[in-house]
Amino acid sequence: MLTSMNERFDIGIVGAGQLARMMVQAAISLGLRVRVLAESPADSAALVWPDIVIGSPNDPEVVASFAEACNVVTFDHELVPPKVLAVLTVQRATLRPNPKALALAQDKLWQREQFARRGLPVPRFHGVRSIEDVAAFAIETGWPVAVKTAVGGYDGRGVWRVASAPEAAELFASLPARGTNLIAEAWVPIDREVAAMVARSPAGEVATYPVVDTLQIDGICREIVAPAGISAHLSDKATALAIDVAKAIDLTGVMALELFVAGDELFINEIATRPHNSGHYTIEGCTTSQFEQHLRAVMDLPLGSTDLTAEHVVTVNVLGGPTGEDPRQTLAQALALPGVNVHLYGKSARPGRKLGHVTVLGENLEEARERAWLAAGLLTGERVESPR
Amino acid sequence: MLTSMNERFDIGIVGAGQLARMMVQAAISLGLRVRVLAESPADSAALVWPDIVIGSPNDPEVVASFAEACNVVTFDHELVPPKVLAVLTVQRATLRPNPKALALAQDKLWQREQFARRGLPVPRFHGVRSIEDVAAFAIETGWPVAVKTAVGGYDGRGVWRVASAPEAAELFASLPARGTNLIAEAWVPIDREVAAMVARSPAGEVATYPVVDTLQIDGICREIVAPAGISAHLSDKATALAIDVAKAIDLTGVMALELFVAGDELFINEIATRPHNSGHYTIEGCTTSQFEQHLRAVMDLPLGSTDLTAEHVVTVNVLGGPTGEDPRQTLAQALALPGVNVHLYGKSARPGRKLGHVTVLGENLEEARERAWLAAGLLTGERVESPR
Repeated sequence: MLTSMNERFDIGIVGAGQLARMMVQAAISLGLRVRVLAESPADSAALVWPDIVIGSPNDPEVVASFAEACNVVTFDHELVPPKVLAVLTVQRATLRPNPKALALAQDKLWQREQFARRGLPVPRFHGVRSIEDVAAFAIETGWPVAVKTAVGGYDGRGVWRVASAPEAAELFASLPARGTNLIAEAWVPIDREVAAMVARSPAGEVATYPVVDTLQIDGICREIVAPAGISAHLSDKATALAIDVAKAIDLTGVMALELFVAGDELFINEIATRPHNSGHYTIEGCTTSQFEQHLRAVMDLPLGSTDLTAEHVVTVNVLGGPTGEDPRQTLAQALALPGVNVHLYGKSARPGRKLGHVTVLGENLEEARERAWLAAGLLTGERVESPR
Repeated sequence: MLTSMNERFDIGIVGAGQLARMMVQAAISLGLRVRVLAESPADSAALVWPDIVIGSPNDPEVVASFAEACNVVTFDHELVPPKVLAVLTVQRATLRPNPKALALAQDKLWQREQFARRGLPVPRFHGVRSIEDVAAFAIETGWPVAVKTAVGGYDGRGVWRVASAPEAAELFASLPARGTNLIAEAWVPIDREVAAMVARSPAGEVATYPVVDTLQIDGICREIVAPAGISAHLSDKATALAIDVAKAIDLTGVMALELFVAGDELFINEIATRPHNSGHYTIEGCTTSQFEQHLRAVMDLPLGSTDLTAEHVVTVNVLGGPTGEDPRQTLAQALALPGVNVHLYGKSARPGRKLGHVTVLGENLEEARERAWLAAGLLTGERVESPR
């Protein structure tokens, strides 16, 4: 049952980035009453939503007071400090996803341990705190190894390829003296990366989206292609794995499971317990977008159809170009391309920053990809060719 | 060229009903800076948008001051008082649509005269001010005649079927003593009603949407089916007519042309120089929604593709039921139906009030219609069968 007018908010969203922005855009259609906690009035979602509270999402008192007015609290990121989760738990706020799922998503070492214990496929790993730890791990797996920060890495930051003991020494020399938890992982011979998205409601309803190909360049997701160009067998395996993980963490909301494909094997790379870049294509590309689906799921409303609306759907991210040009200045050029759906996030332009994305649907994959890359390039002031 | 951050607004929307609400929802994707003039903070668009000015859209000073901060001014309704248009014209605000198009859309007598002069097909008509005028008109055309208010009618209000001189007398007795401009029209033997939507930009670019069937019950639009079940010949004729009208009024933005179909003939019923109920289906049903298209057109951005995204698209309006129940209370039931796209407007429920709409896409028209009517019925607390 939804709240009556002028009572509490249906949903409070902690964080006001582009994910919150696209969540509130979806909330308009369903008539949901949403409040957003933003760090700054210039945050992506704060620019387009009236019910904004300004405050730090890392301050337990701020978040606790914010949560009091909301029936359900959700997040546009996983990096919720444990002290915030603790306070919210004590005040019995309804957190969706639940605090443990959030904590698992942000602490990769604990996550790997939990998943390994349940027999979920993760690369061979070990917590490491020294050069010696890494070298010892490499004796078991061989060089190179992947070294990652356990908490806080994203978009390729906090991940290193270490090919020898001297390289490990170099890495450790560059890190803060103490306090960084690291994981060493066996280097997976990756054929491709895919993502499987699943939604799950408190009632236990589960909906899975088509598995997609994700193309990372310099560790940053640049392109999503739905459906992924993999066998039905692998795709089914990825989907089943997403459901297993969702159940294992008692997911509520949507989750993206990022996977490495190596031959016929899948390895869990990351999980994101929220709408995710790999699901932006669903806005036009699926009957129910990941943003509406997340709202439905956290509100315990029935989940929507995840059918594709076209044979192929391509999303390309719009990253800030080297000149820092505002993509609004070339919007007309991108919109002149037929069938290009533009999404800008209202963020100030900085080189490499995710400023928006474009989505193209079509029967011909290569045509759709070319058009999407062309549009994204126009929006960043670059002429970027499709990289494949 | 769009404005830089923190400068003027790209677009000011006068009026904050559901059309403005869905316009701002579309503006989020394009990153446009929009300000909305609302009469009340409870207005449909004011509930979901941060940049709101509260004031009367009929007060010339209020609108003039509002317009000063906006590069382009557009409207979510046609009933803009002439004095407001006059003030905006004097201050050289960029009005899209232009003041004459707005005035023509609201004054049906003047509109009929202008259209008839250009050879556009309108039912035979005459301005009438008395019972005698109506009777004289009926001598030429026969009874019944349609009598309409020249300004201000909508959703079946201000339209009467008059079958005899005594009925005309009855009608005039019920009207205010003076000041109502009326039109008498020959009664058209309507087979069906259709609507043709066209978008036109200041650069002269034109885009037309598929012609749709509109089903009116008690003068209120209840259902839209795209594409209309008419011959290609009639459909092409309707589309050509929409382009002719758009050019005749120098349209900028989108326009819905509502047409009577009588045999092989088309007659112009109404025009709406803005997004229109008959185009709500375009949100999911076309590559570019009428709301994004309107924003593109008034900003002089390239127009988007109007291709259908499915074989059949059905929209059914959600009208307030007799019990005045808030459709949010039965949202879960509607969302449980697969493939139902729900749009609620945040308006308080009153019997007969347009509170939202639902859209269903499909290959099978009858299935889509049944599901859409079922969902709309659930949202209004009624079980409404598809009426055809």
